[in-house]
Amino acid sequence: MDIYEESLELHKKHGGKIATQLKVSLNNKKDLSLAYSPGVAAVSRVISEDVTKAKELTIKKNTVAIVSDGSAILGLGNLGPHAALPVMEGKAALFKYFADVDAFPICIDTQDVDEIVELVKNIAPTFGGINLEDISAPRCFEVEKRLRKELDIPVMHDDQHGTAVVVLAGLMNALKLRGSKKEEIKVVVNGVGAAGVAITKILLDWGITDIVLCDSQGIICHERIGLNETKVKLMKITNGGGVCGMLRDALEDADVFIGVSVVGVLKKEALKIMKKDPIIFALANPEPEIMPDVAKDAGAFVVATGRSDFPNQVNNVLAFPGIFRGALDNDVVQFKDKMFVAAAKAIARCVDSPTVDMVIPDPFDERVAKAVAQVIK
Amino acid sequence: MDIYEESLELHKKHGGKIATQLKVSLNNKKDLSLAYSPGVAAVSRVISEDVTKAKELTIKKNTVAIVSDGSAILGLGNLGPHAALPVMEGKAALFKYFADVDAFPICIDTQDVDEIVELVKNIAPTFGGINLEDISAPRCFEVEKRLRKELDIPVMHDDQHGTAVVVLAGLMNALKLRGSKKEEIKVVVNGVGAAGVAITKILLDWGITDIVLCDSQGIICHERIGLNETKVKLMKITNGGGVCGMLRDALEDADVFIGVSVVGVLKKEALKIMKKDPIIFALANPEPEIMPDVAKDAGAFVVATGRSDFPNQVNNVLAFPGIFRGALDNDVVQFKDKMFVAAAKAIARCVDSPTVDMVIPDPFDERVAKAVAQVIK
Repeated sequence: MDIYEESLELHKKHGGKIATQLKVSLNNKKDLSLAYSPGVAAVSRVISEDVTKAKELTIKKNTVAIVSDGSAILGLGNLGPHAALPVMEGKAALFKYFADVDAFPICIDTQDVDEIVELVKNIAPTFGGINLEDISAPRCFEVEKRLRKELDIPVMHDDQHGTAVVVLAGLMNALKLRGSKKEEIKVVVNGVGAAGVAITKILLDWGITDIVLCDSQGIICHERIGLNETKVKLMKITNGGGVCGMLRDALEDADVFIGVSVVGVLKKEALKIMKKDPIIFALANPEPEIMPDVAKDAGAFVVATGRSDFPNQVNNVLAFPGIFRGALDNDVVQFKDKMFVAAAKAIARCVDSPTVDMVIPDPFDERVAKAVAQVIK
Repeated sequence: MDIYEESLELHKKHGGKIATQLKVSLNNKKDLSLAYSPGVAAVSRVISEDVTKAKELTIKKNTVAIVSDGSAILGLGNLGPHAALPVMEGKAALFKYFADVDAFPICIDTQDVDEIVELVKNIAPTFGGINLEDISAPRCFEVEKRLRKELDIPVMHDDQHGTAVVVLAGLMNALKLRGSKKEEIKVVVNGVGAAGVAITKILLDWGITDIVLCDSQGIICHERIGLNETKVKLMKITNGGGVCGMLRDALEDADVFIGVSVVGVLKKEALKIMKKDPIIFALANPEPEIMPDVAKDAGAFVVATGRSDFPNQVNNVLAFPGIFRGALDNDVVQFKDKMFVAAAKAIARCVDSPTVDMVIPDPFDERVAKAVAQVIK
């Protein structure tokens, strides 16, 4: 049985990976009258007079919605909200396991930006935070932007920021090992979807100045026509040299390649035109842009992938549980970009002695979520 | 400390009455690859090809949304969605405790019927059933009606049907004790909100033919002007004698009074104009339409209230957990009226030897939810 068959069996057996549980006892009429009617009326009254009390007296204190429209499920594409549900449940399980956050999947049957925004605003009273998940670009940018502006609870699209935070953490350690300064390196980001955009932004926020972005049509530059709004904005803050051409042109003298694109697009010959000891993040899933052994043979200094069977796995689970744990604990009303950079630093610090095969902590390192939570404030 | 202060303390201490829990282990990378990426992709693929598989492979199998707009919270009125949250959490705890249903509160920030219907339809993929709660009349009728028609998962407004089912169960046993036939009795229902309407309908469904409805303005009859649509419809199927006047006029020769109205409206003198040995359901909360001892003194045969400190408590917890347990287990795609009558019979049968002080089972009678679940099909 391969991993897919085994997973299917697991899901058939359990029919759902999370359940609810009681935090109060309900063994007799007294219990019932305290947890429910008539006692609970006092709690409702207090909250109706001061709505902020919901964060003290209810599940809002510790509960996050995982909202997906199923438009970009894992690497599978637009399979709709029902197909998204097992993924979001898995995510909810990770939230609980790694950071004791009570997360609940909300898989929604609309892919219209306005409707998604309205819906999330309307269900927000129950939740202390919103984790957007597997919503395709470029809609995900507008959904997140508007919700961040209009809600008073923190909102994060994990495919963007979760990935970006872990990539930056790994890059911090890799650059330290390589003896490189962030101000002096050239980074190529290949792929301008949710993750690519967020990675670019967090690298800029951290202080990397020379970034060239590529999509499947080549470098994002002034010669490109028909670029969407997101790409036009990014063009203005990246590619200072105004280089045009294809990925191969971008890679010339680059120190770092970050791929959030598709299998096999980074050829081993291309590593020869990069600077010596290039750092390679080949994050396409399940098959990376270049296989780690091939990249190493071609001279790569550090290789990271999205896979657990190679060293340096970029796994969002290092970021999102701690980020929301911190937001809930520290009464964060909205995420700020600097928090994500702080989270990356916290994750990077959890690797005691970085090596080329260990620039990112193990996903099961228990210190990580706590360290991240402390800096989200 | 009274019950209200004590309840507030409980909520301060726990900050939420339910939490999530894991149904699968997540102790190592293998676990992670089965419950989440990459293994879960197989589950998403299967569901994308056959959406009905979500009911086997995900939390949809055992999960109910408790949806409230906070417009009619307990006896408190329209306090909004945040104030509704502690009540809905309590309800979720009851669902889990009494029937192992994983219920989750969705408190929504809109009271517009169209928006509520759209929202519930859009979040439905996650859930195997929808429990509407504390939505004020008459909006609750349209919301429920439309959702029942447009969704392929069972939808029930508990303030209506939960209450109606338990009232009918109690009435069945009370009539048996009194030696009365349902076809020969006259019932007065006082209060035409969510509960009053549903009680009237279930009594008609069961086979009671002589029902007179009253609201605060008096009997629902042909002389009344400005009646809302719901009341006009009910007028046509009740009050066969065409009686007009006030509650007191309705009570003449009535066998049964069912109050879902306000404290104190049933005077002890009024019992004298009812038939001998009247059956009284005085369900106003927290203070009933008439106190049980006063009613008994005035000749009442059976008295039921909404309170746990008197005999014969009409408590919805006898109905909703089993109703949804049955719906989930028996793949019910939508509730039908006959299911509610069947549920009432099942509850009534759980009282082994009915007495005037025991026409309704104890809320903690463990047999009830199971008995109800068996007949919801």
